[in-house]
Parts: sequence; structure tokens; C-alpha cells
Amino acid sequence: MPAPLHFYFDFISPYGYLASLRIEDLAKKHGRTVEWHAMLLGVSVLKVMGLKPLLDTPLKGDYARRDVLRHVRKSKVPFGRDLDAPVGSPLPMARAFSLVKHHHPHLQELMARLIYRAYWVQGLDLSTPEAVARIRLPDGMSPAWLESELHGEFAATLLRREVDASLRAGIFGSPTVVVDSEPFWGFDRLDDVDEWLTRAGW
Amino acid sequence: MPAPLHFYFDFISPYGYLASLRIEDLAKKHGRTVEWHAMLLGVSVLKVMGLKPLLDTPLKGDYARRDVLRHVRKSKVPFGRDLDAPVGSPLPMARAFSLVKHHHPHLQELMARLIYRAYWVQGLDLSTPEAVARIRLPDGMSPAWLESELHGEFAATLLRREVDASLRAGIFGSPTVVVDSEPFWGFDRLDDVDEWLTRAGW
Repeated sequence: MPAPLHFYFDFISPYGYLASLRIEDLAKKHGRTVEWHAMLLGVSVLKVMGLKPLLDTPLKGDYARRDVLRHVRKSKVPFGRDLDAPVGSPLPMARAFSLVKHHHPHLQELMARLIYRAYWVQGLDLSTPEAVARIRLPDGMSPAWLESELHGEFAATLLRREVDASLRAGIFGSPTVVVDSEPFWGFDRLDDVDEWLTRAGW
Repeated sequence: MPAPLHFYFDFISPYGYLASLRIEDLAKKHGRTVEWHAMLLGVSVLKVMGLKPLLDTPLKGDYARRDVLRHVRKSKVPFGRDLDAPVGSPLPMARAFSLVKHHHPHLQELMARLIYRAYWVQGLDLSTPEAVARIRLPDGMSPAWLESELHGEFAATLLRREVDASLRAGIFGSPTVVVDSEPFWGFDRLDDVDEWLTRAGW
């Protein structure tokens, strides 16, 4: 079995959302699977790198707003969020993902997609455990269970572990795809990932 | 005459160098010319945006080193500079470019290429007027004239005007290509520029 592609993302990152819509097809094309990894830009960008949130950065923030919407028009992906809507805490979303990935690894892609859809297509505020528990969940998953877990320590610990591991792997941006130890940062590098897999590197 | 493509770059930016090798062919393909614009990351990134130099940013700096060399291997472009060599002041290079562009607009591309070659292929330290005046110059241009001008106020004023104009245009990164008012930031967006020109936008 060839190693999976490692897909690192923060739910609040619009470029991560755009990449999430392509990553599974890209992996399948090359006979690979995807392991999805939640990371937190609030830790990597703000704390470790000492930078600012993308959309709050002068000049670059305005460019990013325009660039994201240009990509959305070009690729005709479903997109229903105001880029200037409050981001709120990304923790409940990321913890919900980590929790589902831990208990049901085969549901990691589905759970990521359901959260992405609620946040980026429906444009919901998912900054609380209650809000995340109310989105469409995988069949049979109990909203009450999820909400209760999101208030507990275990989900927080799981996410902290994932985030620590992403920093140790040198991951700082969303999306980042790691192919056999080779990192590719940025939505616009998926074509490079494709070529890297085709040529087995260069 | 269709409007030129506006190509904004800082000589110290490796991604700007990589893009400089493609921009003229890309413009020609679409019947366009290129206007070359010096900008200064030290002003946009450090002063206006309040960020850090790319290669000095934790995690991102290490990634950028790897990514630049990966692009160099892939595209087989001439590259002879140690990415960790001291950058020094970018001002003499940028002022030399602005000066030549002002006096001899038809030499702007050539002058940019000569500086790029000295800095990125020969790996020279070009942080002083003396060093810039010693590189290969356009035929007939006097090194003594250039050196003397680089010590004067006029070249500094010309560059300051270019940099101010780039900030007013919202330019923050190197390279940035502006196509009929539409900005594309990043070496990895040249394919989007190509498609934008082909489709007349989307």
C-alpha cells in the first residue's frame, strides 16, 4: 500500500475548503488515499510565526478576498459564506473533526465535508459546540453525544495532539498536502502535487 | 494597442526572479507588452503589512527555501545564489532599474534581466552602488555614470515614486502581475494570468 496523502487544513481557511473539494480525486488518480489532518492557523500563523490573520493583513487581506471569489467563480464550487462574517472560534469544528476521526477513522472525509458544507456553503456560525452538533451529521451519530463530547476534555486533547503533530511536521498553512514527506503549501499547488505523483518527484 | 501587463517585482525575491523568466513570453503569447515595476518588500511586507521577511519567518522560511529549490530543479532555470546569503540593501539594484527605466524605457526589460542575472545566477552582493555599477550593463552605458547617479537623490526619488505607486495599486508581494486592473500575486499564478488573458476574465 502506498502511503496516503496527508491533507492539512483549518476549517476557517477558504483555500483549505477549495482544496478539500479536489484532494480525494487527486489521490484516487494516483492510487492513494487521503489522511485528513485538522490544524489551527491561530496557533501556527499567530503564535509560532508571529504573523496576522490573512484577512486582517493590510493589502493582502483585500487581495485574498478578491482571489478567493475569483477561484469560486472559476471553479464554480458551492460557496455561501460572507468572507467578512465573524470567524469566531474554530475549536468546536476542529475538535468535532478530530473526535470523529479518532472514533471512526473511515468517517473522517465525510465529517470534514459535512463541517465544510455547513460553514462555507450554508455560511453557518459554528463557533460553539451547540452549533456544530446541530449540523447534518453522519448517519447514526447523535447530536447530544457530539455536543457533550465537545464540552469535554478528550476532544480538546485529541485536537491539541493533531495540532502539535502538524507543527512538528513543519506545517504552517492551510491547505498543505504532504506527499511521501514532500510538503506542498497552497491551493494553487495541487497541480504540482499531481505532477510530483506522476513523475515520482523531480 | 491593448494595455501592457504590469509586472511588479523586488529583485531580492526568488519567486520574482522565477516569474521574470516567464513574463515576457506570456505577454507575447497574448499580443501584450510588459511594463516592469520595481517594488520593495521591505516597505510593503515589513512596514505596511507589519509582517516579517519570508525567509526569516519560522516554518514558512524553511518551506520557502525548499520550495524555491524545487521550482529551480523543475524548471531548470539558471540559479547560483545561496538563499541564506545576506540580502543586504535592495536599494541600489532597484534604483538602478528605476533610473534606466526612466531614461531609457526600451531598456527596462534588459536592465532587469542584467540585474537578475548578476544577483540570482552569479550570486553577487549588489548592496552598494559600486557593486551594481560593476555588473554587465546595457551596451554603451557608463558604469561611472550609473555609480554616480546611484549616489544621487534623483534615482532615490524615482524609486520612491514607483514604490508609492505600487502601494496605491494595492501591490504587496513579489511577483504580482496586473492584467487590465486584475491583480495576480505569486509565481504560481502565472497559469491563471494565461487563462485570464485567454478567456478575457471569468
